[in-house]
Amino acid sequence: MRYSLTEQQQARRAEFREFVASHVEPRAADWERDQVVSRQVVQLMGERGYLGSNLPCEYGGQGWDVVTFGLLNEAFGRASSSLTSYLTVQSMVAMALLKWGTREQKSAWLPRLATGEIIASFAMTEPDTGSDLNAFKTEFKRRAGGDTLILNGNKRWITCAQVSEIFLIFGKMDNQSVACLVPRETPGFTVEPIRELMGFRAAGLAKLSFVNVELPPSNIVGKPGFGVSHVMPVGMQYGRISTACSALGIMRGCFEESVAYAARRKIGDRSLGEIGLMRRLIARMGTDVEAGNFLCYNACRAEDERAPESFETALAAKYFTSQASVRAASDAVQLRGAAGCHESSPTARYYGSAKIMEIIEGTTQVHEDLLGRMYMGQAGVLGQ
Amino acid sequence: MRYSLTEQQQARRAEFREFVASHVEPRAADWERDQVVSRQVVQLMGERGYLGSNLPCEYGGQGWDVVTFGLLNEAFGRASSSLTSYLTVQSMVAMALLKWGTREQKSAWLPRLATGEIIASFAMTEPDTGSDLNAFKTEFKRRAGGDTLILNGNKRWITCAQVSEIFLIFGKMDNQSVACLVPRETPGFTVEPIRELMGFRAAGLAKLSFVNVELPPSNIVGKPGFGVSHVMPVGMQYGRISTACSALGIMRGCFEESVAYAARRKIGDRSLGEIGLMRRLIARMGTDVEAGNFLCYNACRAEDERAPESFETALAAKYFTSQASVRAASDAVQLRGAAGCHESSPTARYYGSAKIMEIIEGTTQVHEDLLGRMYMGQAGVLGQ
Amino acid sequence: MRYSLTEQQQARRAEFREFVASHVEPRAADWERDQVVSRQVVQLMGERGYLGSNLPCEYGGQGWDVVTFGLLNEAFGRASSSLTSYLTVQSMVAMALLKWGTREQKSAWLPRLATGEIIASFAMTEPDTGSDLNAFKTEFKRRAGGDTLILNGNKRWITCAQVSEIFLIFGKMDNQSVACLVPRETPGFTVEPIRELMGFRAAGLAKLSFVNVELPPSNIVGKPGFGVSHVMPVGMQYGRISTACSALGIMRGCFEESVAYAARRKIGDRSLGEIGLMRRLIARMGTDVEAGNFLCYNACRAEDERAPESFETALAAKYFTSQASVRAASDAVQLRGAAGCHESSPTARYYGSAKIMEIIEGTTQVHEDLLGRMYMGQAGVLGQ
Amino acid sequence: MRYSLTEQQQARRAEFREFVASHVEPRAADWERDQVVSRQVVQLMGERGYLGSNLPCEYGGQGWDVVTFGLLNEAFGRASSSLTSYLTVQSMVAMALLKWGTREQKSAWLPRLATGEIIASFAMTEPDTGSDLNAFKTEFKRRAGGDTLILNGNKRWITCAQVSEIFLIFGKMDNQSVACLVPRETPGFTVEPIRELMGFRAAGLAKLSFVNVELPPSNIVGKPGFGVSHVMPVGMQYGRISTACSALGIMRGCFEESVAYAARRKIGDRSLGEIGLMRRLIARMGTDVEAGNFLCYNACRAEDERAPESFETALAAKYFTSQASVRAASDAVQLRGAAGCHESSPTARYYGSAKIMEIIEGTTQVHEDLLGRMYMGQAGVLGQ
Repeated sequence: MRYSLTEQQQARRAEFREFVASHVEPRAADWERDQVVSRQVVQLMGERGYLGSNLPCEYGGQGWDVVTFGLLNEAFGRASSSLTSYLTVQSMVAMALLKWGTREQKSAWLPRLATGEIIASFAMTEPDTGSDLNAFKTEFKRRAGGDTLILNGNKRWITCAQVSEIFLIFGKMDNQSVACLVPRETPGFTVEPIRELMGFRAAGLAKLSFVNVELPPSNIVGKPGFGVSHVMPVGMQYGRISTACSALGIMRGCFEESVAYAARRKIGDRSLGEIGLMRRLIARMGTDVEAGNFLCYNACRAEDERAPESFETALAAKYFTSQASVRAASDAVQLRGAAGCHESSPTARYYGSAKIMEIIEGTTQVHEDLLGRMYMGQAGVLGQ
Repeated sequence: MRYSLTEQQQARRAEFREFVASHVEPRAADWERDQVVSRQVVQLMGERGYLGSNLPCEYGGQGWDVVTFGLLNEAFGRASSSLTSYLTVQSMVAMALLKWGTREQKSAWLPRLATGEIIASFAMTEPDTGSDLNAFKTEFKRRAGGDTLILNGNKRWITCAQVSEIFLIFGKMDNQSVACLVPRETPGFTVEPIRELMGFRAAGLAKLSFVNVELPPSNIVGKPGFGVSHVMPVGMQYGRISTACSALGIMRGCFEESVAYAARRKIGDRSLGEIGLMRRLIARMGTDVEAGNFLCYNACRAEDERAPESFETALAAKYFTSQASVRAASDAVQLRGAAGCHESSPTARYYGSAKIMEIIEGTTQVHEDLLGRMYMGQAGVLGQ
Repeated sequence: MRYSLTEQQQARRAEFREFVASHVEPRAADWERDQVVSRQVVQLMGERGYLGSNLPCEYGGQGWDVVTFGLLNEAFGRASSSLTSYLTVQSMVAMALLKWGTREQKSAWLPRLATGEIIASFAMTEPDTGSDLNAFKTEFKRRAGGDTLILNGNKRWITCAQVSEIFLIFGKMDNQSVACLVPRETPGFTVEPIRELMGFRAAGLAKLSFVNVELPPSNIVGKPGFGVSHVMPVGMQYGRISTACSALGIMRGCFEESVAYAARRKIGDRSLGEIGLMRRLIARMGTDVEAGNFLCYNACRAEDERAPESFETALAAKYFTSQASVRAASDAVQLRGAAGCHESSPTARYYGSAKIMEIIEGTTQVHEDLLGRMYMGQAGVLGQ
Repeated sequence: MRYSLTEQQQARRAEFREFVASHVEPRAADWERDQVVSRQVVQLMGERGYLGSNLPCEYGGQGWDVVTFGLLNEAFGRASSSLTSYLTVQSMVAMALLKWGTREQKSAWLPRLATGEIIASFAMTEPDTGSDLNAFKTEFKRRAGGDTLILNGNKRWITCAQVSEIFLIFGKMDNQSVACLVPRETPGFTVEPIRELMGFRAAGLAKLSFVNVELPPSNIVGKPGFGVSHVMPVGMQYGRISTACSALGIMRGCFEESVAYAARRKIGDRSLGEIGLMRRLIARMGTDVEAGNFLCYNACRAEDERAPESFETALAAKYFTSQASVRAASDAVQLRGAAGCHESSPTARYYGSAKIMEIIEGTTQVHEDLLGRMYMGQAGVLGQ
C-alpha cells in the first residue's frame, strides 16, 4: 500500500466508499438544491458510528485513529462537502470536550454525540470580528451571587447550526476568553438559517443570537481564560484535518470524473483524452491528488502520534488541498465545458464547494500568515 | 480620457451605468435565484435601443459604433452576466443577418430585433459535437420538388432560447454547412429549458429539438456552404467581443466591490486594506482591470475600423478577460470570506458567472489553440 | 495605429529598432558574458541623443515626449536589459535634476548628461536598509562654519556606478532626508564593482563607499528635507517607466523569438507551432505583450499629460510587465528546451534579466503594497 | 520518522548531508563560474560509493535501495545541480547495463562505474529530433561480413560528456532502435564541450560527433530493436528519479535559505519574516517541500518494490518538483531582492538550475503529455 495503511484502515476505507456511493452520491445534488441534507442519511451515519468515529469506546465512540477519520472525511468529501461538514463540526466539539470537559460534561454529552443522536456546532465567528479571535463581542457575565452566567452576543456562519442541539460558544468574560456549552432550547437563544450560498448549501449554516441567555457556570469548558488558548485549538485542529481531507475528496472526485469523461467524450474521431491541452489538465490534477493525499495522511498520522509537527502539518494539508481543490474544480469544469456547469454534473457542485474550503477553518490568507510564522520558527535549526 | 473615448461615448457610458444601477443591479440576485430575468427590464432595454445598438438606423437600430457596444456590454456585465447575454445573442444574430441576409430577411427581422420586440438565438452547439463545427448532426434536407426544407436534429446550451422567437440554426445539407432562420412557432420545433446551472442561471439556456421541421428555402442565410465559413464568423466575432466586455464588467465589479469592502471592513483596529496580503489581491485585480480594459477597447476599435487584426484582438480580449474575471472573482470572494459566498454579496454571483465566461463562445482551450495559430501566422514578419 | 502613435513617434520607433538590430542585438550576449557593455555603443547612443531623450533642447536634450522615451526603452530592452539600464539611470538623475536642481546645477550637469558625455547614477539602496527609504545610514554633516558637508556611508546595487561620473546620493542630515550630487573623483569616495550576477551582468552595478567625503553645500538638490519626498519620486517615476518598458521589450523578444522558432523547428513532421501545448504558451505570451504594451503606453501618456493617475499607471505597468516578462522568459526557454538555456539563444539572457526586472525600482512585493494602497485611495469614489 | 525511513536510511542521509556541507556547498559557486566541477570531489564521491550506490555489491556497488539513492540525490541537489548530474547519468547507464547488458558487458564496465573510476553518459538527444525518440538520425550499419558496426551521427546536450569515458548511444539500425556502448577513445568519435549555459554550467554538457566510428557488435546492449523499448526506459526511470530528487534539493535549499534570511534580515524594526507578503512566500515553499518530498519518496519506494505504479510515480515526482523548484527559486530570489541575484547567494544558482530541471529528462510539456496519458489509462477503473 502506498501510505502504509493497515488492513483495517483499508477495509474501513472500502466501507466508507461503499456507503458514500450508495447513500450520498446519488442524492448530493438534490441536497444542494434543497439546501438541506436528508435526516435519514445523518441518522445512518450515526448508526455506523461515523459521527463519533474518533471518540473513545467508553463514550460510545468508535475509537478510530485519525488516519481513519481522514479517510472517512475524504470519502464523504468526494460526494458532498455539505454532508462532510457534519463530520467536521461534530468532531470539533467532541474532541474539544473530550480534552477539556469535566467528567459531568463528558458523560452528559459525548455518548449522544458519539451516536449522532444529536449534532453539535462550534461557534467562533462573529459578524464584526472575522478571524480576530481576541475581539469577541459575545460576552458572558456572572450574575450577582455567581450562580448564573448571562450570555449576550451574536455568531455568524455557524456550520450545521440549523440542526445542532448543542453549541460550543466562544466569548469573553471579565476580559478572559471562555468556551461554554449552550443547548439549543435555552431561552433567549435563537438560530436563523443562512440560505442561498454559492456552495456548501446543505451544510446548515446559521446566525446565532443570544439575548440574556442564562446558563449554569458548570457549562464552561476548561476554565475562564482557556477558551482561545486551550479549548479552541483542539477543535480547530480537527476542523482543519477534516476540511483538508474533505477538499482532497473534491480533488479526487474532479480527477476521477475528468478521466472518465475524457475517455468517453469524443470530439470528431478523438477522445478528449487524446488532446494535449486536456491531458495537461489531467496530469496536473492527478499529481495534485497524489501530493494532497500525502499531506493529509501526514497530518492525520502526526495527530495520531501526537507529534510536535501536528499543528503545522494540519495547516499545510488544509492550505494545499483547499487551493488545489479550487484548481481541480476549475479544470474539471473547463474540461467538460457547458455540461460541467450543470447540477447534473458533479463538477458544478465541486466548483462551488471547493472555494468554500479556502475560507472555512481559516482562510488561505490566514494560513499563509500562520504557516509562514510556523516555518519561521524553525529558522534556528535550518540553513546557515 | 484614457482610451480616447469621444464625448458621446463617454456620455453613453454614463447613461448605461445609470441604467444598470437603477434597473439591473438591485434585481440581479433575484433573477439568478429565480432563473429568469424580468420581462420588464428586457422591454426597457429595447426601448432604450440597447438590443439593436449596432444595427443601422435604417433598420431601427442605433447605429452605434462597436466601442459603444463594448461599453454597453461592460456596464451590464458589471451587474448581471445573464442579462448581458441578451445583448450577446441579439447582436450575434442581427449582425450575421445584416451581413449575409437577403433584403427580405433583413426587412422581416432586423427592425423587430432592433427594438427588442423579439429576441433571437444563435444555435451551433450540439450534444455530441462540442466545438467541432464541421461535425453537425443537425441536418437540412430538400424535399423532392425543392420548395421545402426538412430539418432534423438537436442543439444544446443555446443562450436565451427560453424566450427567443427566432433562431439562427447551423447544420449541414448535402455535406455543406448551412445557416437557416427558424421561427419558434414552427411545428416540430421544441424548446426545453436548462435549469440549475452554477451561474448564468437567468440566461435562459435551453435544448432545441427539431423533428421534421418544415421550412421555406428562403430562410437560408447566405447560401448553402456559407454557414460555417461566412455566416458564423460574423456572429462569433460579436459573441466574443460581447463576452470579453461582459467579463471585464465582472472584473470591474470585483475590483470596486473589493476596494469598497476592504476600506470599510475592520479587523481589530485595521481595515482589510491595511493588510499586505489583501492589498496584493487588490493590486492584481486593479492591474488586470486596466489591462483587460485596453484589450477590450482595442478589439472594439479594430472591429470599428474593420482592421486586419480584428479577429485576433477579439480572441485575445476574450481569452484574457474571461480568465482574469475568474481570478478576480476568486480573490474578491476570498477577501470577503464567508460573506462573499452568500447571494447577498455580488461576489458570489461573480464567482459562478465568471467561470461561464471561460466556456461560452469558445473555451479557454479553444482560444489557446486558435490564438496560438493566429500568432504563428505572423512568424514570417517577426523576429529573426 | 493601435496606440495612436503619431507619425513622428512611429518614425522614431523604427529608428530605435534599427539601431538596436545593428548595434545592440549582435553583441548583447558578449556583453553579458564579459560583464560590461561596449564604450562605443554608449557613445553612439549619446550621439543619437538617446541618453538625453527627454531633456529639453535648451540643455542639449531631444525634448522627446515620454511615449517616445518608452518606445526607446522597449526597443533596447528587446536586446539588452543591461544597456537599457543606461537609459534608466540617466533619465532618473537628469529628470530629478531638471525638476529640483538649481540653475547652476542644471547648467553644470544637464548638457553633459544630455549628450552622454557622462553617465549618472541614482543611489538610494544601502546594505542594511533595503527599501526602507527613511532608514538611511548614509549621513551628511555640516562642518563647523557650514561651508562644507561631510559625507559618510555606503550604498549598494547602484546601477551603472562602474562607469558613472556623477552620483545623486540620498542620505540624511539632521534627521532630514537629503539628495546631493557627488562627483566620482571626490576624495574619500570609492566604487567597487559587483560582478557575477545571474543577469543584468553588464549593467555596471557597484558598491559605493564614502569616508569623510567633503562636498560643497551647493551640491544639495532641492533643499534639506526634500530628498525622499520631492527629489526621489521624480527619479523613481522615470525609473519605473523605463523598467516597465524594458521588461516589455523582453516580453516582445520572447514572443517573437518563440513564434519564429516554433515555426521553423520540426518534431517529426510537425512544427512546434502545431502542438497544442506549445500554442498555449504562444497565445499567453502574445496576449500579455498586447496587455503590457498598453499599460506601458498608458503610463507614458499619463506622464506626458501630467495626469493625476501618472503615479499609479507607472506602478501598474511595472508591476505587470516585470512579472509577465518572467513568465514569458520561462515559457520561451521551455519552448526551446535545452537550446533555450544556452547563451547563443536570446532566451537564456531574457531568463536572467527578466527576474531582475521584478526587483529593481521596487520589488513586486513593494509594488503590491504601494499599488494596493493607491487603489484603496479610490475607495471613496468606487462601488457602493 | 515522517516517511518511515529506516535507521540506516536516516544515518546515510546524515552522512550525505555532511559530505555535501563539507565538500560541495563551499565550492559550488566556483564550479558554476568555472564551468567545471573539481576532479577531487568526483573522486571522493567514488570512494564513498556514491557513484555506484544502487549497483549490486557483486559489481563493487553499494547495493543501496532506491530510497537511499533518492536521499543522496536530494542532498547533492541542495548544493549543486551540476554535480548531482554525475549521479544521474552514472545511474542511468549503470542500471540500463545491469538490466540489459551481457555478462561480458557487465563485468567489463560495472565495476569501474561502481567506483567512479570512470564516468558514463547516456546519449539520446539529437540536434533535430528533440524528444521524438523514434526519429534518430544516428545510424549504425553492419559492415559486410557483419563483424563490425559503423556508427555515424550527432548527439547534443549530453550531460557529463566532457568527462565521460563510456557512452550509451541510442540510434537506429535497419529501422530498429539500438543501444550501443561507445568508449571515448574510439577513432572518429569527438566530443565538443557546450559552455555558457544559464545554469547547470558545471554539468559538463557536450555535443558528440560520430564519423565512421567502428564498433564490435558485442557492444550492443540488449539486442537490435530493444533500444527505445527496453534499454532506454530503465535509464530514463533512474534519470527521472534522480532529477526529481535533485529538484527537491533545490526546493529545500530555497526554503531553508529563505527562512534563515527572513529571520535575520531586518527592514527597520521588523524582520522580513514578520511581513505577510514574505510569509506567504515561505508558507508556499514549505508546503511544496513537504509535498515534493513525499512524491519523491513514493517514486523511490515504488521502484524499490517494482510496483506497477513505478513509472507514473516517477513522472509525477519529476513533473511536480521541477516546476515547484522554479517557483521556489523565483520566490527565494524575490525575498532577498538584489542580494539574491548575486553568485554569493545560493539563490542565484538555484534560479538558473531549477529551470534546467524542467527541461532535462523530458520537459514539463512532455511530462504533461505522458502523465496525462498514464492517468487516462486508469479510466476503466475510476469514477463512473
